Amino acid sequence: MQPAANSQLIIQVIGYKNTGKTTLVCRLTERFKREGYKVGTIKRDAHDFQIDKPGTDTWKHQAAGADLTAITSASRTAIMKAYPESLEQLIAQMTEADVILIEGFKNAPYPKIIMLRSEADFVLLAPASNPIAAAIWPELCAAHIKDCSTPMIAIDDTDQLFQMILKSSTHQ
Amino acid sequence: MQPAANSQLIIQVIGYKNTGKTTLVCRLTERFKREGYKVGTIKRDAHDFQIDKPGTDTWKHQAAGADLTAITSASRTAIMKAYPESLEQLIAQMTEADVILIEGFKNAPYPKIIMLRSEADFVLLAPASNPIAAAIWPELCAAHIKDCSTPMIAIDDTDQLFQMILKSSTHQ
Repeated sequence: MQPAANSQLIIQVIGYKNTGKTTLVCRLTERFKREGYKVGTIKRDAHDFQIDKPGTDTWKHQAAGADLTAITSASRTAIMKAYPESLEQLIAQMTEADVILIEGFKNAPYPKIIMLRSEADFVLLAPASNPIAAAIWPELCAAHIKDCSTPMIAIDDTDQLFQMILKSSTHQ
Repeated sequence: MQPAANSQLIIQVIGYKNTGKTTLVCRLTERFKREGYKVGTIKRDAHDFQIDKPGTDTWKHQAAGADLTAITSASRTAIMKAYPESLEQLIAQMTEADVILIEGFKNAPYPKIIMLRSEADFVLLAPASNPIAAAIWPELCAAHIKDCSTPMIAIDDTDQLFQMILKSSTHQ
């Protein structure tokens, strides 16, 4: 069941490095796709990623100084830009997506799943706006979990996290 | 001198494989950049290009089935889509570019530079709509060149080709 055309689900997955953000975004992508949603994903790279392979024609276009370079084939498209864009600018380019899953951008205002792997990760919970759930690793001790008002879901329980997202969207 | 905000220069470079299309797009990109233009480039890939490196987080997002995936860093942005887009759709995403240089798409209606390397390449000239100039290789024999009504410019004379583009744009 897809959302109405004018309602786009936007969800963030936040957490420290190596807490499973990418894996959860992928599992949720697969789940939403299975339900027939069109899915967009967004990630911020703290480093200076290189997306294209040196030597390709599009790489040469960018190396020559092109501000934007696009390539399309029978099955895929890519657009590269020699400047950063804000999260809002990226979202604005995904109007065709029914759901957008954002990895990171922890200060953004969208409903969030917070990855909790160790005691140190709990500092993310309090300042996080719009928490839907925390996705918790099995090694996390029970003493921490019961202190928390945010619903705690096991990281591999994609179905439960998926249901929490759907439920949260009906309350917005 | 940049064009007025509402006039966007759109130029195609067409020609067979290994006739220097990418090199000319790069030289023109450098030239337009030097004059202060914001440049977009577009290419069609006849094969199924792979832009991302297997194993990156964005690659994983796409492998999980995401229809669109965006990444941004402090200096660059990329958007990958798991479907083709038309030339018109790509152009529509480059509103910030003062000039768009298109490699290929020979049936599109924009002003064109045609790459001529050998006698066999001349078949491209007659059906090409809106020819500005032919960019000719030095080995091309003079007998062919004089038969042609399209201005002939040496492939390495970027300055002359640049001037022809500017001149053509004032006549549109």
